[in-house]
Amino acid sequence: MTIANYQHPGERLEPLGVRNLKILQNPNHFCFGIDAVLLAAFAQKSVTHKKRVIDLGTGTAVIPILLYGKTGCTHIDAIEIQPDMADMAARSVALNHLEDAIHVVCGDLRELRKTYASSSVDIITSNPPYMPVGKNLINPNDSLAIARHELTCTIDDIAHFSGKVLKDRGKLFLVHRADRITDVLSTLRAHHLEPKRLRPVYPTAEKPANLILIEAAKKGKPGLIFEKPLVIYKFFNVYSDEINAIYGTDGPQKREQ
Amino acid sequence: MTIANYQHPGERLEPLGVRNLKILQNPNHFCFGIDAVLLAAFAQKSVTHKKRVIDLGTGTAVIPILLYGKTGCTHIDAIEIQPDMADMAARSVALNHLEDAIHVVCGDLRELRKTYASSSVDIITSNPPYMPVGKNLINPNDSLAIARHELTCTIDDIAHFSGKVLKDRGKLFLVHRADRITDVLSTLRAHHLEPKRLRPVYPTAEKPANLILIEAAKKGKPGLIFEKPLVIYKFFNVYSDEINAIYGTDGPQKREQ
Repeated sequence: MTIANYQHPGERLEPLGVRNLKILQNPNHFCFGIDAVLLAAFAQKSVTHKKRVIDLGTGTAVIPILLYGKTGCTHIDAIEIQPDMADMAARSVALNHLEDAIHVVCGDLRELRKTYASSSVDIITSNPPYMPVGKNLINPNDSLAIARHELTCTIDDIAHFSGKVLKDRGKLFLVHRADRITDVLSTLRAHHLEPKRLRPVYPTAEKPANLILIEAAKKGKPGLIFEKPLVIYKFFNVYSDEINAIYGTDGPQKREQ
Repeated sequence: MTIANYQHPGERLEPLGVRNLKILQNPNHFCFGIDAVLLAAFAQKSVTHKKRVIDLGTGTAVIPILLYGKTGCTHIDAIEIQPDMADMAARSVALNHLEDAIHVVCGDLRELRKTYASSSVDIITSNPPYMPVGKNLINPNDSLAIARHELTCTIDDIAHFSGKVLKDRGKLFLVHRADRITDVLSTLRAHHLEPKRLRPVYPTAEKPANLILIEAAKKGKPGLIFEKPLVIYKFFNVYSDEINAIYGTDGPQKREQ
């Protein structure tokens, strides 16, 4: 099959800047953002090619594809509830010939939790919906709403899944909104996922943090390393050196921001 | 009375760099550190001269004296469990002629909680002992141990006190170790003290944070501002501009570090 067979109308194909990997995105639905790229970079030190990994709410499958690209890991399940999104993710996996490394699973993680054996997985990653549902009217069939709001995937759902499926000392890597840090830390601990590493992400050195990167260990001891700030822009529209290093030199994702 | 009447052998008298205020310290017991000074600066925007304020575990009374100096607040209770420390704190208050503004109370905050009316106080501050008691042998009569370890004042004790005594929307300001952020945020929320503002304190821009400054509001809504980093040293032994501004130009506390 040629790339054209994988790419549907309205989709664009972008290089990821690592190992010649590419990814499909659909600008009318949900495109991955810098948060997913930062999470993959935050988690990659703990991933080796033999680890069993699950990415919850994988969307475009950007995190699994980046983790494969950076670590060679070939045991990744990528779970996505939305059939259209899962289909596009599976085509991205296929066009990179990664069907043996990344298995896209279309389903609800609250149901799939029951199908995974307890204490069977080394690492879970997730860039989940950030917004509480609250009192606003949200169309539960709206694909963007599902990606952004906690309609089908709350912090508690992720922690519940991870608390069961991770091995003891297995690690959960999460990116979330900085303003929800209390929700995140309390919920993880309530599921015996002890936060061990926290890195705040600041848009600039002078603004409040908008994101947090968290590493939690199942049944880990209390005590966390509160890492140095990760600053996105050093000047207006100019990435910091660390962000440039994460993206690599030719990553087209820079245009995302 | 002259200053000599207030100052006991072994104690030193230090200027605080604001309104000609001075404070007694005893290098053989517990001297205040930069954390107390940062907490006073973090809280001072919310303190006005009419607010009712309590400082829990006041030690030398440095936070009440600084808050008076910076805001003119004249309704501050300073609670300290150790009689020797409370006596020195009361003498610092007296030598500054602040007996009408700062009332040093020697007692156990777990008992004193019952003596304060519910929902009667606007602001509570605390720079509590940082270390969990754990399995280490600690002499419960050791004055330094009481100041450093959670023997008589845990995060839960502070939250329990504040959850009762603060008015609705009243504020608790806390400084704690960054590695205990999960303990702090979970415990505050469990007592309906919603964390609203968090500022991490970094010794340098390249090291992990060692302290966190927290503002919580009684019965506040979820949602927190994760403020920009507060960096102590910009170069080796050279304070950042912000720290210099907090200390003022002639503060002798600089020698503390």
